[in-house]
Amino acid sequence: MLRSELGEAEPVRRVELDQVAIPAPRPLPDAIVEAVNAASVLVAPEQRVRRAAGRSYPDLIRLRSGRVGGVPDAVVMPGTPEQVSALLEICSREKIAVVPFGGGTSVVGGVDPVAGPHERVIALDLRRMRTVEIDRISLTATLGPGLRGPEAEGAVRAQGLTIGHYPQSFEYATIGGFAATRSAGQASSGYGRFDEIVTSLAMVTPAGELRTRATPHTAAGPSLRELALGSEGVLGAITEVTVRVRPAPEARRYEAWMAPDFASGRELIRSLAQADALPDVTRLSDEAETRVSLGLAGTSGFKRALLGAYLGLRRRRGGCLVICGWEGERESVDRRRALSARLLRRGGGAALGEAPGRAWERSRFEGPYLRDELMDLGYLVETLETAHTWSRLERLYRAVGEALESALRAQGTPGIVICHLSHAYRDGASLYFTLIARSRRGEELAQWRAVKAAACEAIVAARGTITHHHAIGRDHAPYMPAEVGETGLEALRAIKRRLDPAGIMNPGKLLPE
Amino acid sequence: MLRSELGEAEPVRRVELDQVAIPAPRPLPDAIVEAVNAASVLVAPEQRVRRAAGRSYPDLIRLRSGRVGGVPDAVVMPGTPEQVSALLEICSREKIAVVPFGGGTSVVGGVDPVAGPHERVIALDLRRMRTVEIDRISLTATLGPGLRGPEAEGAVRAQGLTIGHYPQSFEYATIGGFAATRSAGQASSGYGRFDEIVTSLAMVTPAGELRTRATPHTAAGPSLRELALGSEGVLGAITEVTVRVRPAPEARRYEAWMAPDFASGRELIRSLAQADALPDVTRLSDEAETRVSLGLAGTSGFKRALLGAYLGLRRRRGGCLVICGWEGERESVDRRRALSARLLRRGGGAALGEAPGRAWERSRFEGPYLRDELMDLGYLVETLETAHTWSRLERLYRAVGEALESALRAQGTPGIVICHLSHAYRDGASLYFTLIARSRRGEELAQWRAVKAAACEAIVAARGTITHHHAIGRDHAPYMPAEVGETGLEALRAIKRRLDPAGIMNPGKLLPE
Repeated sequence: MLRSELGEAEPVRRVELDQVAIPAPRPLPDAIVEAVNAASVLVAPEQRVRRAAGRSYPDLIRLRSGRVGGVPDAVVMPGTPEQVSALLEICSREKIAVVPFGGGTSVVGGVDPVAGPHERVIALDLRRMRTVEIDRISLTATLGPGLRGPEAEGAVRAQGLTIGHYPQSFEYATIGGFAATRSAGQASSGYGRFDEIVTSLAMVTPAGELRTRATPHTAAGPSLRELALGSEGVLGAITEVTVRVRPAPEARRYEAWMAPDFASGRELIRSLAQADALPDVTRLSDEAETRVSLGLAGTSGFKRALLGAYLGLRRRRGGCLVICGWEGERESVDRRRALSARLLRRGGGAALGEAPGRAWERSRFEGPYLRDELMDLGYLVETLETAHTWSRLERLYRAVGEALESALRAQGTPGIVICHLSHAYRDGASLYFTLIARSRRGEELAQWRAVKAAACEAIVAARGTITHHHAIGRDHAPYMPAEVGETGLEALRAIKRRLDPAGIMNPGKLLPE
Repeated sequence: MLRSELGEAEPVRRVELDQVAIPAPRPLPDAIVEAVNAASVLVAPEQRVRRAAGRSYPDLIRLRSGRVGGVPDAVVMPGTPEQVSALLEICSREKIAVVPFGGGTSVVGGVDPVAGPHERVIALDLRRMRTVEIDRISLTATLGPGLRGPEAEGAVRAQGLTIGHYPQSFEYATIGGFAATRSAGQASSGYGRFDEIVTSLAMVTPAGELRTRATPHTAAGPSLRELALGSEGVLGAITEVTVRVRPAPEARRYEAWMAPDFASGRELIRSLAQADALPDVTRLSDEAETRVSLGLAGTSGFKRALLGAYLGLRRRRGGCLVICGWEGERESVDRRRALSARLLRRGGGAALGEAPGRAWERSRFEGPYLRDELMDLGYLVETLETAHTWSRLERLYRAVGEALESALRAQGTPGIVICHLSHAYRDGASLYFTLIARSRRGEELAQWRAVKAAACEAIVAARGTITHHHAIGRDHAPYMPAEVGETGLEALRAIKRRLDPAGIMNPGKLLPE
């Protein structure tokens, strides 16, 4: 389907890891080894290359070409908050940039090893910090920042509990990263976004430890928890996160529905959200994404299941796919499902049954792997997301879609632009765009930059947010003045100067130069 | 009952408003009048006295005695954000302290006219700013900061909507004040606390306007909305607040229940919270508060209704009162009420019926008036609140209760200390204490200071939060280092220095010297 729509692309050979040429590491003070231990300071080329990039399209282009650009001079792996503290003190004194590193799954350049005004840069890999402490009465879990999604979820599942946080990066991303980037999982309508799940946290900054009260709420001034959440490593390294947990779901029910079109589907999701009847997972594909889902679903069985149900709706042509998922106690799932289903039907939705819903659930983490395959085949694949209120969503949808399509045409690579609505709220929702086009061989980064800039400018002009859950990193930093205004930016910079006076923490991210 | 338990107190005569002696206003620059207009700069003694205090116990003692202490040199009433901006510029230049003033209902000294390092102080009364703009599609309302609770609620009710925010200060407090202090209403389990209801806001600071994106959510860095919420006027004046609204409730059902005792009642509320079955209003009185409710309910009919139901439970002695309220569509109220009731019964609760529930609802704003009456009769009446996780709530409850009782005894005025649990969450709840004792005539402030300090120290030692919804103001500022730590405090001070370089905004509040 891609070949027929986009034209034949030329497959790409990836460079093998050991063929990547990187500069020799610049020497680091002995104090760094002394603060941890020799085994926790990695300087082998493979280790450094593995922390040289996240998973943004530019990151992958750099890695695949073997021209990785910056590489950290060392990977330092502290085991305790005290070691983090000692390391930040040394690096502040010695003017060494520090890039906190978790799962390395940032899609906005959030972990790129930028030295900024400094000469040296280390990756502060927090993977060794994986403590788990569960309060079964209060239903909270205090977690080390280095736990990956499955490790954290597995630890609480062992006690019959769940965190319920399933972003597409789940398999690799870490608890610290979820907090530092305001991650939102696919089931955020049910379990809450990660920033809503976090009840307190600790962050070690060069100026000392910031620790918020472990109480369910406080009215003691501006929220310092909400200051550390989303701070993306520019203020310090998150060393502990306490999250709310729930009983693991007794029942799960995933279904697909079909809405007549995207506009009526959007009204339908709005009616669910405003009636407190949202399924725990709710996503609505636009016409183009629905069509591509049928063509691209790959090896997951999703295609077969979906196609069967889709074609079964004999009287229907076109339409937009809705995925709904309910989790929890069996009785609650049944009750809430009945409530949602009534509104879905009233809004013109037609049930496609559980098979395509279950297939979607099984394939929920596959997107990034599919992207790798498509890049191998010579295609540009990128995703970006935004959010707005219901009354402004249609305009934002059109503006971004048109900007992407026209930017791709201007590159001589007309593409497919598809979108889904997810993370619905009473007052609005996010829009998640995926674009696929032939890549311009040798000009991949310039091509990407032009297309990304067109999308970001359209978002800013429509007064949407530059990111609903991918965060800012390097790629969105130029749009922060539009997002938060000059006064907002100055407030953030003032905190940065106070907590990180030497300016060593994650240079080039979040705050524009 | 009070007389028999606490001993006879000596009634107090309040000083009449025109008998209050205040200093002549210090002259203000003409530019202030030019920035607004002559009619919006009030210097009459009555106007100045009315903004000389909030509604904390020390505030009331000062007002009633006629020794008001500080008084603003003028009350300035801007009509637009531009006028606020012009005023803050003039006051920064001329070194005039500015105390943002809404409903004046702070119970923590949040609006006391403290000049701080400056010689002059004005009350920046925002009551003229009362715009209302409703987005019926997105169900949001953009509100001026000067709207009182009933005005804001009335404006959205006219369109069939509700904000659902009912703190005890509802009748006088303003939208700007709700946001600046992280207010929590009695129905916060259903409608959300005010900080959860706010989707975006604008705040004029001496360094410029801070305006957050009007989108349902953003992952663009630390939350600047959560920085302005709770900022208590020390960074700037909130000039616009957008809140989520809902359809006005079709049905309301309020009921009283009786739990066997406070410990099992707490477990009962925890089971409701952790099963997503909390009524929209949920509060559990301890044994002492239950007993006092029967004796003190006053003129509201609450007493009669409650007593009837209470005595009807023939086999029961003692017990703890639970008030539950459900609001919304009729069907939703019935469904959720049935779910809560099942868990209430399973936890040992006994239904007292709707009459005492409805009576509680009718009397929900009466507490502060009762306090005035009791102060007239010569009693000290104070309330304070905290919060903690479920696993630590019992210890906090005992520690604060004992601290209050022993501090009152140490003053020679043994008192009644009662408590209720409200604002329940999956991970914990708040505790709200009320204390009543004979006041020490002529030593009221010293008596209050000793008792308040004992409670605050007990809270800090038990690692609860110093405030769940009364905010920090002047009274809690000394406990901010314990609450947020030195690094947290430094972060807040850094923002303050950047946004209010002349240090004019609400001196002496939130941040300790």
